[in-house]
Amino acid sequence: VTESVGSVLDVEDLRERVQKALEMFLDGQMPVLDAVSEDLAPVLQAGKDFLLDGGKRLRPAFAYWGWRGAGGEDTKQIVVAAAALELLHACALIHDDVMDASDTRRGRPSVHRRFESTHGRQGWHGDPAGFGLSAAILLGDMCLVWADQMLNTCGLPAEALLRGQAVYDRMRVELMAGQYLDVLEQAMGSQSVERSLRVARFKSAKYTVDGPLRLGAALAGGPGELLATYSAYGVPLGEAFQLRDDVLGVFGDPGTTGKPAGDDLREGKRTVLVATALDRAGEQQAALVRRLLGDRQLDDDGVAQLRAVIVDTGALDHVETLIADSTTEALCALEVGPVAEPARSVLRELASAATSRRL
Amino acid sequence: VTESVGSVLDVEDLRERVQKALEMFLDGQMPVLDAVSEDLAPVLQAGKDFLLDGGKRLRPAFAYWGWRGAGGEDTKQIVVAAAALELLHACALIHDDVMDASDTRRGRPSVHRRFESTHGRQGWHGDPAGFGLSAAILLGDMCLVWADQMLNTCGLPAEALLRGQAVYDRMRVELMAGQYLDVLEQAMGSQSVERSLRVARFKSAKYTVDGPLRLGAALAGGPGELLATYSAYGVPLGEAFQLRDDVLGVFGDPGTTGKPAGDDLREGKRTVLVATALDRAGEQQAALVRRLLGDRQLDDDGVAQLRAVIVDTGALDHVETLIADSTTEALCALEVGPVAEPARSVLRELASAATSRRL
Repeated sequence: VTESVGSVLDVEDLRERVQKALEMFLDGQMPVLDAVSEDLAPVLQAGKDFLLDGGKRLRPAFAYWGWRGAGGEDTKQIVVAAAALELLHACALIHDDVMDASDTRRGRPSVHRRFESTHGRQGWHGDPAGFGLSAAILLGDMCLVWADQMLNTCGLPAEALLRGQAVYDRMRVELMAGQYLDVLEQAMGSQSVERSLRVARFKSAKYTVDGPLRLGAALAGGPGELLATYSAYGVPLGEAFQLRDDVLGVFGDPGTTGKPAGDDLREGKRTVLVATALDRAGEQQAALVRRLLGDRQLDDDGVAQLRAVIVDTGALDHVETLIADSTTEALCALEVGPVAEPARSVLRELASAATSRRL
Repeated sequence: VTESVGSVLDVEDLRERVQKALEMFLDGQMPVLDAVSEDLAPVLQAGKDFLLDGGKRLRPAFAYWGWRGAGGEDTKQIVVAAAALELLHACALIHDDVMDASDTRRGRPSVHRRFESTHGRQGWHGDPAGFGLSAAILLGDMCLVWADQMLNTCGLPAEALLRGQAVYDRMRVELMAGQYLDVLEQAMGSQSVERSLRVARFKSAKYTVDGPLRLGAALAGGPGELLATYSAYGVPLGEAFQLRDDVLGVFGDPGTTGKPAGDDLREGKRTVLVATALDRAGEQQAALVRRLLGDRQLDDDGVAQLRAVIVDTGALDHVETLIADSTTEALCALEVGPVAEPARSVLRELASAATSRRL
């Protein structure tokens, strides 16, 4: 019990240090952008608002504990390196919201909508939506570059950074690839459970847990055996985490998720949950899903009807079982691998925290 | 004369080596993407088509000669590192075309139009334009990541790469910042010559010449004095180069530019050339520019009318003078700086090649 309380404190403490590191980094960008033009202040502000509003900081946590599990000391450098992953994540989310035409993110206007509003308020020329789109693409690009810069300037030795870069670059390519597959699945209207799982794996799972853990280990110069353990723990856990997210996207409380209830249904997301429901649906149920899924105007009643199909087909139960099984697989891999304490204990807790029911 | 012919051959030879390096790198991505899904083949193909269709390879050339001018040897590693800049450039162009809603690039469909066509041909679900947009954002992101990966794996020592990263990261942030300013100027309908020059400086000039040169020098561990020389040469030359591009965008031959005649006028680009014309225009001329500039349907007659204003106001002559003066400034800085031969001679030639009239 004592150990558990201790690691929860560690996790909270780390979240604050990540927040501070991001603040310091972004504040350090102000003079750089100011030297170009004071007109860039709103761009930096949008970046700060997006990045500093909290969030779970899961990716930095996994990178940090990946480093600690490899025997790395608790240093300022690794916290800065780990925090850089939030900038990468910001790029992914900002561009994702453009692609999904999402109006909100974490209960606030998405970046493209924010700049669209600015355009409208200022009465500028041309299309406000086009301006919002451009600003969001560029802020996303900038976050991607800032992530590199934060990682490169974290203070770790050049050799360590080069080891980390190999993991980091691969992780990013897979992230972009997974996002493309997600877009493609929606265009193709695919209903395959297998294909949905693949999207989840590359778009989200690998870069949420496996990638960050291995980045931390690579920075610390951990052995191949440790990296293998991290993948054996990280890949299933990341999938469980993504499946939990899918469930929350349909059944989650808007107060917790920061998104309107059933928003994933309105967006027509081809999640494993939805694919499973379709796979098991009777004719009438399937017709209902095809009719309502992806309907931007879907009201509460429509959401309720879709939810009922997902429950009645057993898809929800099935996905909950998948989550539980994957989490168990992850935890078993963690126990047998060469992971230094206290990292092992914390990773055990993170696994539960990231996959438990939060409906 | 012999020296001049020698360096022209060097430049041609380098272009081929850059092409080969890009080919090898992109071919190396195939198994990585295949391991995710065979559905990614069209993404890689679009990247290859975009990157391997020639181009002037100016940025790699400046990076390579920046390295040589610092006394670096001619090695495979520096050619690979330099070639990575083409991937960064591809990201900038692909995203730029999305933001400008450009239909073509180098005489071929822009990336978002290419994927839009695929969507239409396949009869997929949803909005073809939305699919094209998403695919182009993601391919641009991927090019940005690939650029890092190519640089990180070029084979230069970790310490050299870390020195290079500092220059590279700054250059990329300024590029994104400049692109945002460009979008902002168009939204604000700004007519200021000074503001247009600032956009040109950050969006294009610094990352075409100054940044690549300093990247090469930093990789080679060149002294601060050399980096200062490169900026003194690179910043004015980059501006001259961008101004030449602006002139070509209005007066250029479509066969050379790969874009319809007067396309920059149709897009309403707020170039220094246009800003100068507006600055000097009489009332009638200004009214004509305000009416026609940015008209997507502008016909040949409209283009001719706008061109006439640009000539009659003396804006064209003025910009030609600016180009000549900036080029001279660049060449003078080159002569007095500590630049090793044959780099100095080649940089002298590149200055002429990049800024001479090609109407």
